[in-house]
Amino acid sequence: MSDHRALENLTVLDLTRVLAGPFCTMMLADMGADVIKIEMPGTGDDTRSYPPFRENKNGVRESLYFANINRNKRGVTLNLKTPEGKELFLRMVKSADVVIENYRPGVMDRLGLGYEELRQVNPRIIYAAVSGFGSYGPYHLRPGYDILAQAMGGMMAITGPAGGGPTRAGSALGDILGGLHVTIGILAAVNARAITGQGQRVDVSLMDSVIAATENTALKYLESGQVPPRMGNRYAAVSPYDGFRCRDGVVIVACGNQKLFGKLCTEILEQPQLAADPRFADMTGRLEHQDDLKELIEAWLADKTMAQAAEILLAHGIPAGPILDVSQILDDPHVKEREMFVRTEHPTLGEVTVNGCAVKLMGTPAAVRAPAPALGQDNEAVFSALGLSPAELAALKEKNVF
Amino acid sequence: MSDHRALENLTVLDLTRVLAGPFCTMMLADMGADVIKIEMPGTGDDTRSYPPFRENKNGVRESLYFANINRNKRGVTLNLKTPEGKELFLRMVKSADVVIENYRPGVMDRLGLGYEELRQVNPRIIYAAVSGFGSYGPYHLRPGYDILAQAMGGMMAITGPAGGGPTRAGSALGDILGGLHVTIGILAAVNARAITGQGQRVDVSLMDSVIAATENTALKYLESGQVPPRMGNRYAAVSPYDGFRCRDGVVIVACGNQKLFGKLCTEILEQPQLAADPRFADMTGRLEHQDDLKELIEAWLADKTMAQAAEILLAHGIPAGPILDVSQILDDPHVKEREMFVRTEHPTLGEVTVNGCAVKLMGTPAAVRAPAPALGQDNEAVFSALGLSPAELAALKEKNVF
Repeated sequence: MSDHRALENLTVLDLTRVLAGPFCTMMLADMGADVIKIEMPGTGDDTRSYPPFRENKNGVRESLYFANINRNKRGVTLNLKTPEGKELFLRMVKSADVVIENYRPGVMDRLGLGYEELRQVNPRIIYAAVSGFGSYGPYHLRPGYDILAQAMGGMMAITGPAGGGPTRAGSALGDILGGLHVTIGILAAVNARAITGQGQRVDVSLMDSVIAATENTALKYLESGQVPPRMGNRYAAVSPYDGFRCRDGVVIVACGNQKLFGKLCTEILEQPQLAADPRFADMTGRLEHQDDLKELIEAWLADKTMAQAAEILLAHGIPAGPILDVSQILDDPHVKEREMFVRTEHPTLGEVTVNGCAVKLMGTPAAVRAPAPALGQDNEAVFSALGLSPAELAALKEKNVF
Repeated sequence: MSDHRALENLTVLDLTRVLAGPFCTMMLADMGADVIKIEMPGTGDDTRSYPPFRENKNGVRESLYFANINRNKRGVTLNLKTPEGKELFLRMVKSADVVIENYRPGVMDRLGLGYEELRQVNPRIIYAAVSGFGSYGPYHLRPGYDILAQAMGGMMAITGPAGGGPTRAGSALGDILGGLHVTIGILAAVNARAITGQGQRVDVSLMDSVIAATENTALKYLESGQVPPRMGNRYAAVSPYDGFRCRDGVVIVACGNQKLFGKLCTEILEQPQLAADPRFADMTGRLEHQDDLKELIEAWLADKTMAQAAEILLAHGIPAGPILDVSQILDDPHVKEREMFVRTEHPTLGEVTVNGCAVKLMGTPAAVRAPAPALGQDNEAVFSALGLSPAELAALKEKNVF
């Protein structure tokens, strides 16, 4: 293992708020980038007032939402509407690699801090933006919320029970998908810069990101002329591949091919004749008679827990697993060994459990090294490093520039 | 705009099949990497026999699923179980940057082609693996399907109608999230290599990737002791933020703050007194009385289409949008301008519409440049470039090495 961090050579100026942008810079910071979060003096990121909350060591209500997604970042305040704030920001841009923002398109341009201005100061700068609908296209100025991306990107239309209404994924999936796509864009632009010597603009929209995640839905429609219906937990091409009710919840059984289905009939259901039953003999038949098949599988499951059922099925080589809720996931030995949750010590909140990083770089591992910044905690260190004297800093502070 | 492609300096040996791995290498290829897809002679990637299908110009049923996700890649066949196949592969590794596979952990090691072997041949090689549960942890050898990752990663438990069952997202979201995470890992490892001079192993699991996408669900549970319930299209912290029934479907209305709610009451519902109604006066009240609020909003919507409602709401600055299905998305002017679907010409299938790339690199744009490869189409070009003579190639072909 190396002492280096994968992205230790990158300085990221992070103007993002709420989720999509901060999720991206969290990943960059976890992998070692020096992320400097820039917030408005006084208020800061909206999520500083988002639940869940905890009363902190100073008796003040403090957000765990913010603490989770902003760990590993340094924090400064800067009022970009003041001339002095703009100038300080441009001085920071000179030696930075990446600027990322998730304002509505046009905001940075109106501040005089759009990509065209920044590249004059530093042609190697990578300017990344993530917004609801991107920086161009007829909807680019619309307000963008996660739920709109899930709705307009086509994910809700294909999610939900058969015969029921369109359904939003239970987390802010549009924001997460946007955050992942803009992370890819930034890292690709870093590689491109090594080739061209120039930075560039990276533009990611939540709606595009959701569309990409619906993968071949469009192809299915274009070939069949049928809009793919909602089908609960089933999958159009494979059966059995669904959730099945057992004693204490729902367990997944997934037989991707004929051999696995044969094993299921013979070794689990102990009804070898089912594999030859005309209703179930091939995939087409099984897809047509899914309800009958479900009844047979659920009869076997009736007296078993999720854990028991999964254990028996897996011992026979049949893909299976429980539907876990977050309390079970936090307690799961596999999740623990993969460090998908990390206990940290926060200066005012005390012990906080944060999400781990799902990208396992085995040579230069991602890590949670530092708590989320208090508002403006690194002002002095960061602005001094730009060459400002204590007197200059005091004067700017006096003018509420930071 | 530059004539370069963002990842043109990278050669990727792609052993992946089905979706998670191929989705990653699709993105790398779209951004300009030279992706050489390596398939088993005779059969190739399983998805060559996945629907949707079309009868091709030769009268043979051909997969559009494969054609979509493998565009821009070159294709060779190689039997890695033969000594000659292994040797050819190791020769390819010498000059490659990335090897990616999505076998069950251990398969490559048993072939003698695990990371430890490959780094002997090329210490700069980046070895990326994406699997259901990753290469370590108690479940690492379990079979991994998308639905299991959605179930065990906690997404299903929080998705679905209030009071209803856990619900799978309608696309293979676990695979997509895994593909996005491993893409990030590869690009981060490329940057790390510029620092350390060494490659490394990148390990991504679908289950981890889904857990990461549930963002602060764990924090909510840890602070409250309550497992977050399924709540349809609602969001625990904001109201109104939901789907509302209108004349021809469901439209999203999202008022993130007090000011927007005031506008909704005054300018849209034309009932300014509602903003002061004790039930709705603050967010806590609105969350508690969501059903009453829904009734009022749906009364206004009853005679309007999704498109009309969204237009009116947006004109007043209130975030809103229709729930679109794929037929509407394909026809949407914004989606068209963002090139999220691209018409291509395929040598045997004719015109095929494929997904566009959601990462918009404005200086070195991603593009669909070439159709998915026919099985083994680039054998001669790729193997000749390794220095094999026509006689040697013929001998290997004779032995079914490729």
